[in-house]
Amino acid sequence: MNAPVLSLSRRLRVSPFELRSLQGTKTASVYNHLVLPTCYESLEADYWHLREHVQLWDVACQVQVEVSGPDALEFMEYLTPRDVSRCAVGQCIYTPLVDECGGIINDPLILRLAEDRFWISLSDSDVLLWAKGLALGKGFDVRIFDPDVFPLSVQGPKADELLSRVLGDSIRDLKFFRFIETTIAETPVVVARTGWSGQGGYEIYLREPGAGIRLWDTLADAGDGLQLRAGCPNLIERIESGLLSYGNDMTLENNPIEAGLDRFFKLGKPTDYLGRAALEKIAAEGVSSQLARLIIAGEPVANPRTVYAICNEAGEQTGAVTSAVYSPRLECNIAFGYVPVDTATPGTAVRVMTPAGLREAVVTDAEWTAY
Amino acid sequence: MNAPVLSLSRRLRVSPFELRSLQGTKTASVYNHLVLPTCYESLEADYWHLREHVQLWDVACQVQVEVSGPDALEFMEYLTPRDVSRCAVGQCIYTPLVDECGGIINDPLILRLAEDRFWISLSDSDVLLWAKGLALGKGFDVRIFDPDVFPLSVQGPKADELLSRVLGDSIRDLKFFRFIETTIAETPVVVARTGWSGQGGYEIYLREPGAGIRLWDTLADAGDGLQLRAGCPNLIERIESGLLSYGNDMTLENNPIEAGLDRFFKLGKPTDYLGRAALEKIAAEGVSSQLARLIIAGEPVANPRTVYAICNEAGEQTGAVTSAVYSPRLECNIAFGYVPVDTATPGTAVRVMTPAGLREAVVTDAEWTAY
Repeated sequence: MNAPVLSLSRRLRVSPFELRSLQGTKTASVYNHLVLPTCYESLEADYWHLREHVQLWDVACQVQVEVSGPDALEFMEYLTPRDVSRCAVGQCIYTPLVDECGGIINDPLILRLAEDRFWISLSDSDVLLWAKGLALGKGFDVRIFDPDVFPLSVQGPKADELLSRVLGDSIRDLKFFRFIETTIAETPVVVARTGWSGQGGYEIYLREPGAGIRLWDTLADAGDGLQLRAGCPNLIERIESGLLSYGNDMTLENNPIEAGLDRFFKLGKPTDYLGRAALEKIAAEGVSSQLARLIIAGEPVANPRTVYAICNEAGEQTGAVTSAVYSPRLECNIAFGYVPVDTATPGTAVRVMTPAGLREAVVTDAEWTAY
Repeated sequence: MNAPVLSLSRRLRVSPFELRSLQGTKTASVYNHLVLPTCYESLEADYWHLREHVQLWDVACQVQVEVSGPDALEFMEYLTPRDVSRCAVGQCIYTPLVDECGGIINDPLILRLAEDRFWISLSDSDVLLWAKGLALGKGFDVRIFDPDVFPLSVQGPKADELLSRVLGDSIRDLKFFRFIETTIAETPVVVARTGWSGQGGYEIYLREPGAGIRLWDTLADAGDGLQLRAGCPNLIERIESGLLSYGNDMTLENNPIEAGLDRFFKLGKPTDYLGRAALEKIAAEGVSSQLARLIIAGEPVANPRTVYAICNEAGEQTGAVTSAVYSPRLECNIAFGYVPVDTATPGTAVRVMTPAGLREAVVTDAEWTAY
């Protein structure tokens, strides 16, 4: 397959960090109408660097939808099965948004900025339109807009050291999934202890789009001796860390229960929400398939462009691999895929049809045990 | 600026034509979560070929939202200021969808498949979420979903000859913005006399995603002697033909009146629609700026990544160029841009700040008169 160069126009919104982040990017994708770098040196080199040092990620594509006004909390509750009232001001929660059938609209981070003011920090779908449509239709008294706030992510084991040089040692005390409002280089930012890796770090929400380069350079200049460089969400690392990708591992066709996102909420929260009846029915009846971690035997496999079929011994398709990559650390192919619930137990053998032929595979656990 | 290679994953939906259309694509973008080729040989070579021969365009990214059910017409009316009741079955209409402020949500083609069944053929925003949200909120009795229908566009002066070889001479009688339901290579398709160029042609809506290669090959095989090849929407041709691009020439921040899209509808249609009060107020008060065609003097300019400022003689910014390209046929730079209404008259001199410096420019007409 030919790999075309990404052409840019005004239709793809400009990240405030683009002048820095596109330097040296080998490959990129488009996410929420912005450019998302996907590789700098190589997938493996980026991976090892991320695990050992600290990287600046241009994740401006994690755009925000701001919801404020008298009905803000009630509306946020309406969007998701998770109990938003339990999210304190200064706290973030990860939760799926679902439609009337329980299908996943998005799996954002929600930041509560005030009792009646939220940011929904998005994965790849136009939730601004979804939220506006629902609120207009139902008559919620809320203001919903794109606040032009763009995140820069600082990920890796040296992220604490880097941020403490810029913000002082107190930033080390910031708890997981909590945020503060502060300034860096005289620019107002929100700093959260979050990020789309398992290596630790922060997301810095830039509130002045014109100050993106100043923010980037301030962080880069503070990185002396830390081997800091530009990076991006890494396919190997995020699969190892069990981080699902909307559009890859779940879509509107999937519900949060089969995708395993129900561990982030309890069914039966006190307030009403869209899709409640559907989700409760799915929970009561039980799902037929379940997202599982898989180890696929043999030579390295590429990430699927569509899906790789999961087959039973008779050769019939029973499921689908949604993401896969070779882990140089675990020295095997690691993957996510939907399998029938009766084969979702770690240790169960399955088969995966890859472009290189049928491969043996095993359902595994969060430690990627080989079985 | 570094130009990264587009990386593909399952998150970018697969076009049924991708195996053919990505052969030879030099650059591509992402549109509605699908890959959109943007150049094959060169912008200029693609342009001349399109004007002289016939091209197959993979525009699967023009995804559909299907709306059907008892309230389908009433809901479609609610989405747009255009009178949808005047669209006959078998007809297409081009019209903006607007929000409560009159901001443009999308500028789709609407196809009426039956009295109570429509396809909204989209430009680049998730109207599925917008329409679902509004319909759920307001309680319209409609079914709204993505029908997995993907268009292949056949554009250029020899499109009639090509299609008549495949569908018989009667296809030549299909009127502009009308469609028929038929089959090609035993595959059910909708064939419309539409397309995003001024060179004439058809859009073929594939209804069986698995038959994309068969449809492509059937058309390609019928092209003997026509110099048929793969192509894509062409920046030069579409600006020359006055075709606006959502995300480039108008966004949610613009209303249809300033974008000049009000020529596609009459204010005051009998049925209610969202944004009516806002649009009527804007019309009554008059807009302050207007999208205009511009000729920019001097050496070829590149398409803006953000905007090029339009300035008055005092050097103050009064407007913005949203799309620009050098036309090898007109031998000048042609552009779209928002200018103050009092400078929107053809023949008015303005200045444009390009990356190569301040340039003289003139507002022009649909014939690109030099003045």
